[in-house]
Amino acid sequence: MTSTIPTPTSLDAVPGAVEAELRAFFDDAVPAAAAIAPVVGEAAELIREFVLRGGKRIRPVFAFAGWRCGTSSSDRAVAGAAAEDDAPGPRDALRVCAALELVQACALIHDDIIDRSDTRRGYPTVHREFESRHASAEWAGESGAHGVAAAILAGDFALAWADDLVHGHRPGVSTGSTGGDRSTGGDRSTGRDRSTGRDGDHPLPAEVGATWAAMRTEVLGGQFLDIVNEAGGDDSTEAAYRVMEFKTAAYTVARPLELGARLAGASEQLVSTLRAIGHDLGIAFQLRDDLLGVFGDPERTGKPSGDDLVSDKHTALRAIALHRADAADPALGARLRSYFGRRLDSDELGSARDLFVELGAVAEVENSIDELLGSALTALDVADIGDDIRAELIAVAHRVAHRQA
Amino acid sequence: MTSTIPTPTSLDAVPGAVEAELRAFFDDAVPAAAAIAPVVGEAAELIREFVLRGGKRIRPVFAFAGWRCGTSSSDRAVAGAAAEDDAPGPRDALRVCAALELVQACALIHDDIIDRSDTRRGYPTVHREFESRHASAEWAGESGAHGVAAAILAGDFALAWADDLVHGHRPGVSTGSTGGDRSTGGDRSTGRDRSTGRDGDHPLPAEVGATWAAMRTEVLGGQFLDIVNEAGGDDSTEAAYRVMEFKTAAYTVARPLELGARLAGASEQLVSTLRAIGHDLGIAFQLRDDLLGVFGDPERTGKPSGDDLVSDKHTALRAIALHRADAADPALGARLRSYFGRRLDSDELGSARDLFVELGAVAEVENSIDELLGSALTALDVADIGDDIRAELIAVAHRVAHRQA
Repeated sequence: MTSTIPTPTSLDAVPGAVEAELRAFFDDAVPAAAAIAPVVGEAAELIREFVLRGGKRIRPVFAFAGWRCGTSSSDRAVAGAAAEDDAPGPRDALRVCAALELVQACALIHDDIIDRSDTRRGYPTVHREFESRHASAEWAGESGAHGVAAAILAGDFALAWADDLVHGHRPGVSTGSTGGDRSTGGDRSTGRDRSTGRDGDHPLPAEVGATWAAMRTEVLGGQFLDIVNEAGGDDSTEAAYRVMEFKTAAYTVARPLELGARLAGASEQLVSTLRAIGHDLGIAFQLRDDLLGVFGDPERTGKPSGDDLVSDKHTALRAIALHRADAADPALGARLRSYFGRRLDSDELGSARDLFVELGAVAEVENSIDELLGSALTALDVADIGDDIRAELIAVAHRVAHRQA
Repeated sequence: MTSTIPTPTSLDAVPGAVEAELRAFFDDAVPAAAAIAPVVGEAAELIREFVLRGGKRIRPVFAFAGWRCGTSSSDRAVAGAAAEDDAPGPRDALRVCAALELVQACALIHDDIIDRSDTRRGYPTVHREFESRHASAEWAGESGAHGVAAAILAGDFALAWADDLVHGHRPGVSTGSTGGDRSTGGDRSTGRDRSTGRDGDHPLPAEVGATWAAMRTEVLGGQFLDIVNEAGGDDSTEAAYRVMEFKTAAYTVARPLELGARLAGASEQLVSTLRAIGHDLGIAFQLRDDLLGVFGDPERTGKPSGDDLVSDKHTALRAIALHRADAADPALGARLRSYFGRRLDSDELGSARDLFVELGAVAEVENSIDELLGSALTALDVADIGDDIRAELIAVAHRVAHRQA
């Protein structure tokens, strides 16, 4: 199955390779779901389309970067592991990369329900798509409630499949009513001797599994904290940073780097270095996201102008601006708050943007990004990793910190 | 951690042992969640209470029964596996049993959102509990929407943790902002040599993982099919059986038996026998559930009288009655349908029950239960399993088919 997917020779080639892995996974998952019932197969196809539609594949890029850091380090914990037949190979790293995209699919599908978003990447969100199908079919009950119900289950499928993929299982279901042996997909791995698996089929080493476990708890915890902060009206910079820490920095950069590095048998010292780099780049990534959420060009970001203001997203940028405004003059704080959580015309958006600049919030956030980038680059400079991946990661770090979309 | 939990010597002791395993898991999971933020720890505590509050633990009972079938069989695929240090032991079987209860927690929490249920086992459902907390705290936004959002994430936690537990990982999160090494829980397993793990710490054999993967796809697919059948108005007996097949028979009995048996290194022939038994008992279990949903005593079932009629659950009993009524006289079909999907006073409930009996639907379902039980007992009689577990499973089979709650 995996033999036709070329190993990426640069980080730029990771998204394409990951998409090939995901396609191969869904080549098993869709028939397995359809064996339950055609409508379940259709749901699996919708999840496949959602997953393959895209995004930057930033988590896979960092996970594969971590793998390359680990394999190129002079200080591997498992000496000569690469030479052993039963050590994970690049195919296994791609499998972990693809599994990250399935976790992300669950996070996005469920977030879109929670945020009541209508579109994502120019297409209807999953709950809206199921809602439309319900309405078109003129089924019984409320279309909106059906859409949410179906999308909750679609997210659950993605989360369960993420774990199946990372552990090297394929979804397969029992068919027929006899309870007999006819099966699709999954049972193909039955009886396979895992200790001598091919590249791509190796079981997940325990320490990689622990990192995977931590990452999922962190992203769900960060998301939970986010909805509580928004409901509870916690406007503090500390609260915004706490959410960034778990929902973005750990989940998007630090843990993916760690997953790849641990899979390659990296030393604890290298893992620790990569986590520190990942933390800094992850926070920088989110702070840039905050700026783009207010100042971004819709033609480049694909999101409406000032989207974070309209949705009143509790970003660090918002917290910093509020703190500065309230400290300067309560009336200024009130003025700033008047721009949050409602539609803004272009004059209002311009005034809101000016206020963020005048308050010094933009400069503070830009400074933080520069400091974080500097810290990550310094650590990258001396990290015990190969020079090729060092150069590629330096380029990625600049892109993450200064991207315009 | 696991050394204080005694191995169950009978199936009756399984629920207690599984609850001890679950308590031990949450002893790690709650602090890991609280390390993200106190409110996340509170959410983890709510999930713990929900999981420990109960139910019959039927899936763990069958999984442990499968383990005992496998270990007592004369025809183990892995000859002498029990004697090997690195073979799974009864602690590993209990770990899988406990993980099944976490999958079930996700299924129930998300089902209760989908069905808009207010209570479960006499307590508020999870989304209602989060809704109440939001209202009590006088937070911003709609309490109902917040409750649903929080419960979607709570179900996701349970599903992710089910996978962590079954694969022997503990949730642990990175703490602090340095990206350094301070961690809770999960990383304890880092570097542990899994090939010589203690009982309870063994990695999941590949064929057990494939069964686990199939089971999760099946239950989600069965649930998805259920909501589509109800929305699409598919009243057929075939549709009701198809949902039972995946949502109940495979998920509740057949796959748990298989998981335990495969963990014990059972032969493919024994696995096939147990799956056939599990299928029959699973369908019998659900058909009895259908009868209890119309005729059950609320004092015993803990559910309102005629609950399935009021909620218009698309059961096989309902489909059979409708088919018989429509075939006899369209007016009879219309009368039967008049009892579905609304509150019924006690006279109406009595008339509805009489109609199910007069149509012969109750007798047909009772006959099916008897046939399925007979088929399972015949297979149990000749199965290559120990006589102790055979006797216990025969008792369980009778209980499943003829329970009153």
